Amino acid sequence: MSRSLDKSSPIARRRFLQPFAGTALAPPPIWLMRQAGRYLPEYRETRAKAGGFLDLCYTPALAAEVTLQPIRRYGFDAAILFADILLVPDALGQSVRFVEGEGPLLDPIRTAADIARLSPDATRPKFGLVFETVQRLRQDLPDETALIGFCGAPWTVATYMIEGRGSKDQAAARLFAYRDPDGFQRLTDMLVEVSIEYLSGQVQAGADALQIFDTWAGSLPDDQFEQWVIDPTRRIVEAMHERHPGVPVVGFPRGAQGSALWYVTETGVDGIGCDTATPPYMMAEAFEDEKVVVQGNLDPLLLVAGGDALKARVEEILELMDGKAFIFNLGHGIVPETPPEHVADLVRYVREGSAA
Amino acid sequence: MSRSLDKSSPIARRRFLQPFAGTALAPPPIWLMRQAGRYLPEYRETRAKAGGFLDLCYTPALAAEVTLQPIRRYGFDAAILFADILLVPDALGQSVRFVEGEGPLLDPIRTAADIARLSPDATRPKFGLVFETVQRLRQDLPDETALIGFCGAPWTVATYMIEGRGSKDQAAARLFAYRDPDGFQRLTDMLVEVSIEYLSGQVQAGADALQIFDTWAGSLPDDQFEQWVIDPTRRIVEAMHERHPGVPVVGFPRGAQGSALWYVTETGVDGIGCDTATPPYMMAEAFEDEKVVVQGNLDPLLLVAGGDALKARVEEILELMDGKAFIFNLGHGIVPETPPEHVADLVRYVREGSAA
Repeated sequence: MSRSLDKSSPIARRRFLQPFAGTALAPPPIWLMRQAGRYLPEYRETRAKAGGFLDLCYTPALAAEVTLQPIRRYGFDAAILFADILLVPDALGQSVRFVEGEGPLLDPIRTAADIARLSPDATRPKFGLVFETVQRLRQDLPDETALIGFCGAPWTVATYMIEGRGSKDQAAARLFAYRDPDGFQRLTDMLVEVSIEYLSGQVQAGADALQIFDTWAGSLPDDQFEQWVIDPTRRIVEAMHERHPGVPVVGFPRGAQGSALWYVTETGVDGIGCDTATPPYMMAEAFEDEKVVVQGNLDPLLLVAGGDALKARVEEILELMDGKAFIFNLGHGIVPETPPEHVADLVRYVREGSAA
Repeated sequence: MSRSLDKSSPIARRRFLQPFAGTALAPPPIWLMRQAGRYLPEYRETRAKAGGFLDLCYTPALAAEVTLQPIRRYGFDAAILFADILLVPDALGQSVRFVEGEGPLLDPIRTAADIARLSPDATRPKFGLVFETVQRLRQDLPDETALIGFCGAPWTVATYMIEGRGSKDQAAARLFAYRDPDGFQRLTDMLVEVSIEYLSGQVQAGADALQIFDTWAGSLPDDQFEQWVIDPTRRIVEAMHERHPGVPVVGFPRGAQGSALWYVTETGVDGIGCDTATPPYMMAEAFEDEKVVVQGNLDPLLLVAGGDALKARVEEILELMDGKAFIFNLGHGIVPETPPEHVADLVRYVREGSAA
């Protein structure tokens, strides 16, 4: 794990980065997963101008604009590049569409031949547009705001590539992996390789930190988890630590609380994103022993509900994590129904919190 | 916890029950969640005769028939009553329909008035049909086959009652609980009360053991988990232990691995159903320290895939759980695409397993 951050890094100016150097901050840095998105009227306005969702992702001026919107409104300690985990399969040549109300639709991968048709070399032009967004952002963001780059973890991206859409139980991908482990390994290896180049390009363009989203990490038994979640993630983290020492990598193995400690130890991530169901003893004790930064884990539905219960829960989390290397976040992305004023309340509660 | 089983219980004749008295069996007892179901041609035939899905559940001769089918085919150590967790809201007076390809549809509960319209007293006629099924089953089952009764946990049942259908994240129920905790508590209390009568009636009709299915236990943060999963489950388990000492109760808090040990300690369940993602150290060590019977957790998708990987995984699980109070099962229900011959293979692997 890359515990020693480069002294020339912007760490002194960007609070988000300080927990990764072992500094517990009060109040903790705060950003929110999916902080740029449909709950914001200014996002919906920019989105309407963009044409399709992929056009929004691939138009640097617009993608940078929606990334900046929640920073302007709430002054979060970190911005996260506006993009989608499915840009990787799209750039590889798999057809990806975003259909309003249906989520993503892909031409599903069924055979080894479908995998062979994907081309890591073809990713450059589209990735280049993402890197341009990152460059713009690093220029336009306030100097004190960290910029997080990201990708989907190979397992989660593969589930969409094979299912052709989101699914309740990732059955198609799990079956593919059982029936053709070699083919699934080839797909995973390709995703590892492409993700390394993708994240590396984001860092070179100005990202201060990285997050690997493994939304569907919770659907696998331990042997498959080791093969399709831990091993590919470890390879990406190692490559990032080697190429970009001092750039922290946060893993988010959603739904896999029972294996999260194992994940932390084996992948070498610098931070662990905790989902809503991660229990307090893991947040406050187990991960601390591993010297990993903890990020999370307010229920996004409580942010929709708001009120005294929100305030009380924020105070509970701040108290629990007081004195620890901690970054405040949600346990999953903001939902579109979230009232923007509740987000303002949340930021105020965290910054003026009882444990602050 | 009810560790001391009544000496007059059928424990000596029914292997399934012996782990609950602390006896580790080799080979372990085996049954499979959703072992009666669409993967079996004889089920599909009976189902076609029944009319609707609810008609199948409420016709004792047919419900008993489909319960018996997998016992005839595979000789599992336990049969589980054929029913559905949504019989409880249906019996309470909420409209429940099962639509082919869409899953269950309910008129969703939106207000306190909707809750007030539900009637625990109205459940008797429909519950009576279920109890009749149990009576028939106890007569028709081989004497060595245990009979498991069940209900859905109040939290999981409430999610369907409020969402009106299955959902990815149980958002409507989680929001209801945040916005109107008193109303949600009233609904929960009603479900606790009704579930106690429902399970108690099943035991009186001949069930040897009980399972409480909490399919959506994994979507809650710890404070909500304590209030909506642990507390109602504990009340049901305590009532069962008081009314029916010696009848073991298994809890299945799916997706909540991070809180499963806490669940075991606080609810007093006699057995813990482990989902597919429950890691080996929990299966083999953590739960053993709590003297709880472990049940699980083969990936149902591996049962679809079959072959050498299935055999190898079964052997791994048998080895891991060798010498422990263990019941072999899946980590979730059998899926309809499962080839029936793979189930026969599985039973053979378990009964002739390397650790046997």
